[in-house]
Amino acid sequence: MDGGTDQIKFLGFDVFGTIVDWRTGVAKAVQVFLENNGGVPVDPYAFADDWRALYQPSMARIREGHRAWVPLTILNRENLETVLKRHNISSSSLPDAELETLNEAWERLDPWPDVIEGLLRLKRVFGLAPFSNGSIANMVKLARYAALPWDAILGAEISRTYKPQPETYLRSVEALGLRPSQVAMVAAHNDDLFAARQCGLRTIFIHRPTEYGQGQTSDLTCTQKWDFIASDLNDLASQMGC
Amino acid sequence: MDGGTDQIKFLGFDVFGTIVDWRTGVAKAVQVFLENNGGVPVDPYAFADDWRALYQPSMARIREGHRAWVPLTILNRENLETVLKRHNISSSSLPDAELETLNEAWERLDPWPDVIEGLLRLKRVFGLAPFSNGSIANMVKLARYAALPWDAILGAEISRTYKPQPETYLRSVEALGLRPSQVAMVAAHNDDLFAARQCGLRTIFIHRPTEYGQGQTSDLTCTQKWDFIASDLNDLASQMGC
Repeated sequence: MDGGTDQIKFLGFDVFGTIVDWRTGVAKAVQVFLENNGGVPVDPYAFADDWRALYQPSMARIREGHRAWVPLTILNRENLETVLKRHNISSSSLPDAELETLNEAWERLDPWPDVIEGLLRLKRVFGLAPFSNGSIANMVKLARYAALPWDAILGAEISRTYKPQPETYLRSVEALGLRPSQVAMVAAHNDDLFAARQCGLRTIFIHRPTEYGQGQTSDLTCTQKWDFIASDLNDLASQMGC
Repeated sequence: MDGGTDQIKFLGFDVFGTIVDWRTGVAKAVQVFLENNGGVPVDPYAFADDWRALYQPSMARIREGHRAWVPLTILNRENLETVLKRHNISSSSLPDAELETLNEAWERLDPWPDVIEGLLRLKRVFGLAPFSNGSIANMVKLARYAALPWDAILGAEISRTYKPQPETYLRSVEALGLRPSQVAMVAAHNDDLFAARQCGLRTIFIHRPTEYGQGQTSDLTCTQKWDFIASDLNDLASQMGC
């Protein structure tokens, strides 16, 4: 174990990208939606990417205090309307239930192939929870869909703000009755780990080089020497002696 | 299914008494503590009962707004000092670590014999979470000790008040993105179910006639016609078709 004097007791996970393959799952749901609604010729992966691209800007206003906290499901739904417009699909002509079902794609995402075995191995030694920007409802539905064995749901909703705001990490750590150095943030994104380290948490980088598809350009390498660097959760479990 | 038109989707559980046998667990820890500290002649069950009796009054000041919310662990620790004094044991002469370990007895409690099988059966159909006055840290440690398969930890801490305040039930329901009538409160205590019903939740009574030992006088019968009444969680799972 690297650096700090405290033993790591709990692992907090980024979920979208680190645990589940949101791009494939959302694209599949978009495909079904497009087929059900006149077969508009849109690349479902491009649609998924465009939808995801609105994620950070939509949280920014909440992080900066210009808007009260709302669960991610609401932001996703607002962003969906924007993406539909961009692809020249009129949302007003579509039944609300169809849009709702499409928005729920974010709650029905498959985990990467190593995740279930890796989490079950890690759970023998460490407590596990999402430290995600997803809401509690979001994370519960995703965990029940994908059989993710969390011990609790922490992150954005109990903190009433979004990562990478320090409160998101620190409130989650506080809820566990632990010190920041006893908790490791696990993410496939350098910026998430950077913010967690600023708050005193330990850091674990997981390589997810196809989160954004074969042409991915971001987070292919580590921008800092993180406490652990692993190819997947099974590799991490082995490195941590689980 | 009784009454309401909504289908129940999620079960919120009282924990101390309904899920775990706090009295036996705490009495055993008190026994060890007394043996380690000079074998003071105190009945460990009486000590556990006295400790538990301070639970409601200590929360009252927070419910009534006279004190800011603090996690139950802190109230338990304060109450421990009071109980020690009552039993003429001077806490100042004892190492802090000993008192801390004794206080952690509330995180190492065995479930009633039907609980694990019953929860696993119920989990196939319903989401499950504690709606307890215990803190998140408290509930996580207890769940890891007793292998309780929760989907989330809700209740007092996310609501920043204590049952039976309506916010405790309503904030938990809101975090799930559900309506109150889609959630059932499961408890061995009529007063908990009464408060949950006032908030629009469905209600499930579990008989725990020895929570307070063989001489128990409270909650031996139902004070209202609750939506389900079950002898234990396996009986409930059968009644709910799990």
